[in-house]
Amino acid sequence: MPVLLAPDRAPILDKLLSTANIVGLDTQIVSPEGVVLPSIRGLGALSAAGSSEISFLSNPKLAAQLQTTSAAAVIVAPKVYQQLLESGFTPCWHAVLCSQPYLMYALLAQWFDQHRIDHLPAGIHPTAVIHESAVIGSGVSIGPLCVIEENVHIGSGTRLGPHCVIGANSAIGAHTLLHAGVTLYHSVRIGDRCILHSGCVLGADGFGFAPNPMQHGAWAKIAQLAGVVLGNDVEIGANTTIDRGALEDTVIGHGVKLDNQIMIGHNCHIGDHTAMAACVGVAGSTRIGQRCTIGGAAMLSGHLELADDVHVSGGTAVTSSIGKPGRYTGVFPYTDHQQWQRNAAVLPQLAQLRRRLRSLERESPANPA
Amino acid sequence: MPVLLAPDRAPILDKLLSTANIVGLDTQIVSPEGVVLPSIRGLGALSAAGSSEISFLSNPKLAAQLQTTSAAAVIVAPKVYQQLLESGFTPCWHAVLCSQPYLMYALLAQWFDQHRIDHLPAGIHPTAVIHESAVIGSGVSIGPLCVIEENVHIGSGTRLGPHCVIGANSAIGAHTLLHAGVTLYHSVRIGDRCILHSGCVLGADGFGFAPNPMQHGAWAKIAQLAGVVLGNDVEIGANTTIDRGALEDTVIGHGVKLDNQIMIGHNCHIGDHTAMAACVGVAGSTRIGQRCTIGGAAMLSGHLELADDVHVSGGTAVTSSIGKPGRYTGVFPYTDHQQWQRNAAVLPQLAQLRRRLRSLERESPANPA
Amino acid sequence: MPVLLAPDRAPILDKLLSTANIVGLDTQIVSPEGVVLPSIRGLGALSAAGSSEISFLSNPKLAAQLQTTSAAAVIVAPKVYQQLLESGFTPCWHAVLCSQPYLMYALLAQWFDQHRIDHLPAGIHPTAVIHESAVIGSGVSIGPLCVIEENVHIGSGTRLGPHCVIGANSAIGAHTLLHAGVTLYHSVRIGDRCILHSGCVLGADGFGFAPNPMQHGAWAKIAQLAGVVLGNDVEIGANTTIDRGALEDTVIGHGVKLDNQIMIGHNCHIGDHTAMAACVGVAGSTRIGQRCTIGGAAMLSGHLELADDVHVSGGTAVTSSIGKPGRYTGVFPYTDHQQWQRNAAVLPQLAQLRRRLRSLERESPANPA
Repeated sequence: MPVLLAPDRAPILDKLLSTANIVGLDTQIVSPEGVVLPSIRGLGALSAAGSSEISFLSNPKLAAQLQTTSAAAVIVAPKVYQQLLESGFTPCWHAVLCSQPYLMYALLAQWFDQHRIDHLPAGIHPTAVIHESAVIGSGVSIGPLCVIEENVHIGSGTRLGPHCVIGANSAIGAHTLLHAGVTLYHSVRIGDRCILHSGCVLGADGFGFAPNPMQHGAWAKIAQLAGVVLGNDVEIGANTTIDRGALEDTVIGHGVKLDNQIMIGHNCHIGDHTAMAACVGVAGSTRIGQRCTIGGAAMLSGHLELADDVHVSGGTAVTSSIGKPGRYTGVFPYTDHQQWQRNAAVLPQLAQLRRRLRSLERESPANPA
Repeated sequence: MPVLLAPDRAPILDKLLSTANIVGLDTQIVSPEGVVLPSIRGLGALSAAGSSEISFLSNPKLAAQLQTTSAAAVIVAPKVYQQLLESGFTPCWHAVLCSQPYLMYALLAQWFDQHRIDHLPAGIHPTAVIHESAVIGSGVSIGPLCVIEENVHIGSGTRLGPHCVIGANSAIGAHTLLHAGVTLYHSVRIGDRCILHSGCVLGADGFGFAPNPMQHGAWAKIAQLAGVVLGNDVEIGANTTIDRGALEDTVIGHGVKLDNQIMIGHNCHIGDHTAMAACVGVAGSTRIGQRCTIGGAAMLSGHLELADDVHVSGGTAVTSSIGKPGRYTGVFPYTDHQQWQRNAAVLPQLAQLRRRLRSLERESPANPA
Repeated sequence: MPVLLAPDRAPILDKLLSTANIVGLDTQIVSPEGVVLPSIRGLGALSAAGSSEISFLSNPKLAAQLQTTSAAAVIVAPKVYQQLLESGFTPCWHAVLCSQPYLMYALLAQWFDQHRIDHLPAGIHPTAVIHESAVIGSGVSIGPLCVIEENVHIGSGTRLGPHCVIGANSAIGAHTLLHAGVTLYHSVRIGDRCILHSGCVLGADGFGFAPNPMQHGAWAKIAQLAGVVLGNDVEIGANTTIDRGALEDTVIGHGVKLDNQIMIGHNCHIGDHTAMAACVGVAGSTRIGQRCTIGGAAMLSGHLELADDVHVSGGTAVTSSIGKPGRYTGVFPYTDHQQWQRNAAVLPQLAQLRRRLRSLERESPANPA
């Protein structure tokens, strides 16, 4: 019979239990008889974890690895653990039974990373160029060679890596992290607990031009007068760009997660908790609902509305509004190149083929006419 | 009967009239009887503008908003205004009658933004690192922590935001604006009145490698010896990259407008006044004509020629040259995911389906053979 | 009869012969009778090279230009040169006969560029901010305003342009070149002789979030604990991003060449000598073999395996693993917009059309049933 692990023997599992308690995850630790938990030094995948590491099972397809892993402890759903025992297998690892193993893994990974974060350099580096009018909260860290322009507000506990530029009249909330080389134009507002990755640019001019019929082909620039607003708990990936609004702000809701190299056009609204994978482009003035997911390299045309809980597959071009939750896809299936050539050649004839088919159907003996 | 607004009562409308005069736009202001124009403090969309703001109607679909807007003044085409009066509606806003309302809006937005621009910090920041051989024109502003290398020329009235890097032997024309964090490699030439947004990189090496048959799979780098040349009045979006030429310059014509995250390969030529939306990729040595528009996330293969006045829809892959003006498209229509699965499964059989259709046609009684 | 050029008359051809010797390219120089080689000042395409430039023919389609070029010397395959003589044409240029003209051109272009590189500023710029624990090899150049964090190692002969940021515990090998504005997060390892272009970001957090069922729609961040490892002779394009691994490193093999604006997700492995054109996106945990080529703007889904020697056409979405070498494509062919509209409208009916075709086939008199 497994025994409950004594918390004082394993601070990391103790930490797990207290974390689980805070977020409301019902969690129990079950240890193999007579096996003392070693000092846990890391977190690894089931197939790679060493004997002083903790692992987790979130993908049921990998359940067989529970029988071969060298991990000292494994986070696993109670049901899966029960099935394992019933199959006759006796684990020699300590089981952390929890209904949300993937969430528990996320929390644990954060805990491991915290040690590194706690040792990051603090304070305001003397090489930073900070306008005298800037209002800097308590416990703020500003890295080397940052530039903070006029009337900027930075909330308490926020950290800026090296080489960030914060444009005039911008404001950053509390406990937000800007990695090296983030650029905010003027009048950009960022919430609390956000993470902005290197090379992202918020507040560049939206792409607005009026054709000038008096000069053949020339474009008159439409100055972009509004700003960008990010909610709380937003993460923005490396080299992602979010343009400022023309007349009204571009708005990114609370808890939105944007991967790298995403482009959000001017005047867009992204609803709370929506997540987009890398390389997505959203053209101007499109409004996306809450809890949507947009797959990598998808593109959305401008002036669309997507309802809440819409899921767009990677590589899909969304060219019209979507009013109903669900999953939407439009991707050309890839094949061997020669096969593609043969089949793609038929595409420009599809309408004609349909006509020919109809014509045959009209002639068919089965056709009552 | 509406009366003509006294210019001294409303400097902004006065400004509008003089601007219109300069660019040759025939413009007239018509005021509702007895309504004094308030002080105009901003510019807003018809649906959002407040009672001290000016608005515009450029999209005829929104004409109904003319009857509900709270704007103090509206820029509108004379024909549309006439129809409104004829419909029996009496506007309580001041009408700025102009045949190009969208262009007038663009000019007005520029005027509103000018106030902010006029207050940007001027002069050369002491933290900028400037090579002694650099030639800096009169009235140039160079922001904090810029790096200007050997033999750089910067024309009069040009502004560099913080953190720009200008490589050796590069030249920037007059009255050009580089936002924070623009990088020019060596030997890049920029024209007058250009705007370059943060994170754009001009002059990185084109992607050129020769397979080295003596080392299985290895690539020998082809040094990229030529530069990048931008004409006048060009705008380049945030995080866009334009590679330097291998043997001849990459050339961007006058008045070209490139949105964010565009990639222009080495040796490309982009004709005057061509505009590209975000996330477009143009492979090396492709030549695009004048006044083309390329929709977002379109991609163009290398070594192509596109005629003048070609319009490519967003998301389209252009894999061959286009000799005739017109609009070109190639996008897989998106649908509900399950419907997509059913239909996409037929694509690898299209050539076979066509054969089967032909075979039925041959057997058809309607077939004279 | 052509005569062999005296090496002392033309140092550049001398250089060519010695380079050819080093890399094992059998090369011979043949000069037109009585024509003295001028001083060679540059390298140009056949159609553009002037009379003091050297050129090359690698694309057989351009062979006719051999008869019209003004180049002083041309690198050409012996077989092509022989055919030219047999056609009765007598070149007035000096022929550099070499079985790999394109490779020879690459080596020659490198030689021309070396002059510029040799004159780049050397040493550690006083404005660089370098942590006292950093270990800097001999002959290292660090440009203005770079930031080198704790415990960084930089190998001998490596050059950093201005504004690079090297995160804590990262290591860069020997003779590697970082152009201006490269950002490495903490714990990133770069090999020898690599080239990293401006704006590229290595080591940003992979896109990992666990849904938090206890907060409707919210995401819990999965801290990304592993790093990024680049082999030797890797080139990374401008504004390309390579994310750090979640639990195991993201690995880029030796000799890999990535163009601009590419996105490599966390945990990916890219095999040696694989090359990707611009704007490619590779989602997390995908493994790509050796010597693959991925065309521009292709996208690869996550958790896939691509064999060695797989070639993916530009714009193709790869959504499943590829076990066999070969070329794979999936691109919607573009056409005139109206034609596209007519044909694309049939796509959502393809499965239905197939059913109707089957039904006709069943009724067909040719059908034995």
